[in-house]
Amino acid sequence: MTTRSREDVVQAAGRLFAARGFHGTSMRDLGDELGLLGSSLYSHVESKEQLLIEVVQRGAALFQALADSVAASDRPPAEKVAALVRGHVDIITSNQEQSATFLNEARFLPADGRTAIVILRDRYEETFREVIAEGVARGAFRDQNPALASILVLSVLNALTRWYRRSGAQSPEEIADAMVAFVMDGLQ
Amino acid sequence: MTTRSREDVVQAAGRLFAARGFHGTSMRDLGDELGLLGSSLYSHVESKEQLLIEVVQRGAALFQALADSVAASDRPPAEKVAALVRGHVDIITSNQEQSATFLNEARFLPADGRTAIVILRDRYEETFREVIAEGVARGAFRDQNPALASILVLSVLNALTRWYRRSGAQSPEEIADAMVAFVMDGLQ
Repeated sequence: MTTRSREDVVQAAGRLFAARGFHGTSMRDLGDELGLLGSSLYSHVESKEQLLIEVVQRGAALFQALADSVAASDRPPAEKVAALVRGHVDIITSNQEQSATFLNEARFLPADGRTAIVILRDRYEETFREVIAEGVARGAFRDQNPALASILVLSVLNALTRWYRRSGAQSPEEIADAMVAFVMDGLQ
Repeated sequence: MTTRSREDVVQAAGRLFAARGFHGTSMRDLGDELGLLGSSLYSHVESKEQLLIEVVQRGAALFQALADSVAASDRPPAEKVAALVRGHVDIITSNQEQSATFLNEARFLPADGRTAIVILRDRYEETFREVIAEGVARGAFRDQNPALASILVLSVLNALTRWYRRSGAQSPEEIADAMVAFVMDGLQ
């Protein structure tokens, strides 16, 4: 009989949610992926929603650790933005499934879980807003709305979960270099 | 008895796919949304997949018309990029449901439909690549990989389907202005 840890179950759920979406993944798919029958699977988890919450929380924790470490540093704003961009690319390229689920599938959480995740995402976005506001205040960045600018930066970063392929033409480092250049200087 | 045109059905499908995802929307949901019983609904459409194909094709046609008109103009590259950005924002803010489905749900199409949409999206992205390559070749833009740069620009643009709210703090024009500035010059 196959034995699986809770960690295996959460990892498999992350892969399936990322590939098929939350609604497109059944508990039966998850059992098949793990080689577990329904009864063994239900000894690990109560529900698909509970698994989504765990996958999303693990994803959130990775991003928050990055934000906290950058926010606590005393580097100039441009270096902080570069560190956030490089760290975000590193998290996505190293943990693509968990990141994709955190960023794309959280809308399918039940209301309580969704509120918890919205708070985590807002906190993460807040770090970007503060760093950009600091850059504007110091004259390092052009005058702009930090809330809107942080959404645009995160748009560039988060889309990576959708187009990144390990077999792709660019390495994570090349992607991070291109993103830092684009976010700081644009096309021109 | 409620009478609905095929146009009503496709519009409603676009709204539901955008709100709940393709897998999260059942034909029954669609019937409820339209006030139609199953039998009347099936007189309009064969399947949910067929509806997704139509929603996605209409979305694609809007974006392609923009790309063709910009590509045919003889404006300098920076103006072409600005026209693409403004046009894209206009399409999303005027047709949020169709755009969201084209951009986010096409992965759920059956294989044939998916291939057709991938071709349409590649053609649209190709316009961005060409305009950026032209800008690099003329020295109007810094030296960069046009394929990667076009993905980054489209990341900024496409995320709008996820965060735009008609009731939001910024008008479509203010959002377009901010995006043009960000795409051309970045934060600095």
